[in-house]
Amino acid sequence: MNYEQRTILGIDPGTAATGYGILTIERDPQVIEYGCIHTSSNEEMPHRLKIIYQKIGDIIEKYHPQEAAIEQIYFSKNAKTVLSVGQARGVIILAASSKGAKVFDYTPLQIKQAVVGYGWAKKHQVQHMVKDLLHLDHIPSSDDAADALAVALCHYYSRRLKEEE
Amino acid sequence: MNYEQRTILGIDPGTAATGYGILTIERDPQVIEYGCIHTSSNEEMPHRLKIIYQKIGDIIEKYHPQEAAIEQIYFSKNAKTVLSVGQARGVIILAASSKGAKVFDYTPLQIKQAVVGYGWAKKHQVQHMVKDLLHLDHIPSSDDAADALAVALCHYYSRRLKEEE
Repeated sequence: MNYEQRTILGIDPGTAATGYGILTIERDPQVIEYGCIHTSSNEEMPHRLKIIYQKIGDIIEKYHPQEAAIEQIYFSKNAKTVLSVGQARGVIILAASSKGAKVFDYTPLQIKQAVVGYGWAKKHQVQHMVKDLLHLDHIPSSDDAADALAVALCHYYSRRLKEEE
Repeated sequence: MNYEQRTILGIDPGTAATGYGILTIERDPQVIEYGCIHTSSNEEMPHRLKIIYQKIGDIIEKYHPQEAAIEQIYFSKNAKTVLSVGQARGVIILAASSKGAKVFDYTPLQIKQAVVGYGWAKKHQVQHMVKDLLHLDHIPSSDDAADALAVALCHYYSRRLKEEE
């Protein structure tokens, strides 16, 4: 199966900030868009989750990615953070699958391994590789958007590898 | 404000099993229905979350609760469990609020305090109190449904107290 001409949505989930990045694959991965969905801690959780759900839905309707790659959280984070990211992940997975995108999960270790070449790379190393590999003029100003592009890239490499086997 | 003639949905969230219980308040709380939404670990997560989202939506459309009370997880649980419950909570909060129910959270400590009278009560004590307070013939066979009725009761007591102040 040819992996070209796919569109991939990468997502770094969080309640306050959910990064996203869209890649299309035309021989090489090309960045179409990236950004960050922010919600305010002054708003109640149901409203914040609704915003994330709707914006992810809007992005998928606009770019029609066939696949959504979502970053897993480090389980070493504190339990309140894990719960909060879990809630955001829940509505993101729901939005992606209800709009027809197949969902994939990647751990931070897998993402660093795929993008930098070793799993214990620092954040700025990942960001530099994202910039270089995707021929961006600069590192995305949002860390979450950069992480979202990294997970989309990780997915691309991982699928290409599988399909070459 | 009179708290009578409300309908409350109590929820004990989980990916594999989400308990639910519906109470109406006519002077005293009355059980209308309770049960458990099961999803199989053989299914993929997007499908499991969709089932939970849809069934919670169906229950709200059927009984029109104005308020949904959702149990918080013990943060002492392991991070994978917290993440998994978080994902279920995300889609449950989204379903409840998009159908017009106002969402409230209660910790296990608050629930035990409200239903049994002290926060360190054992599970079977909570279940016995749920049976007695709601005049059930027997303890619900599903622990998750019993817990869902307990959180609904906790919400009822807590709101009644607030509105009597």
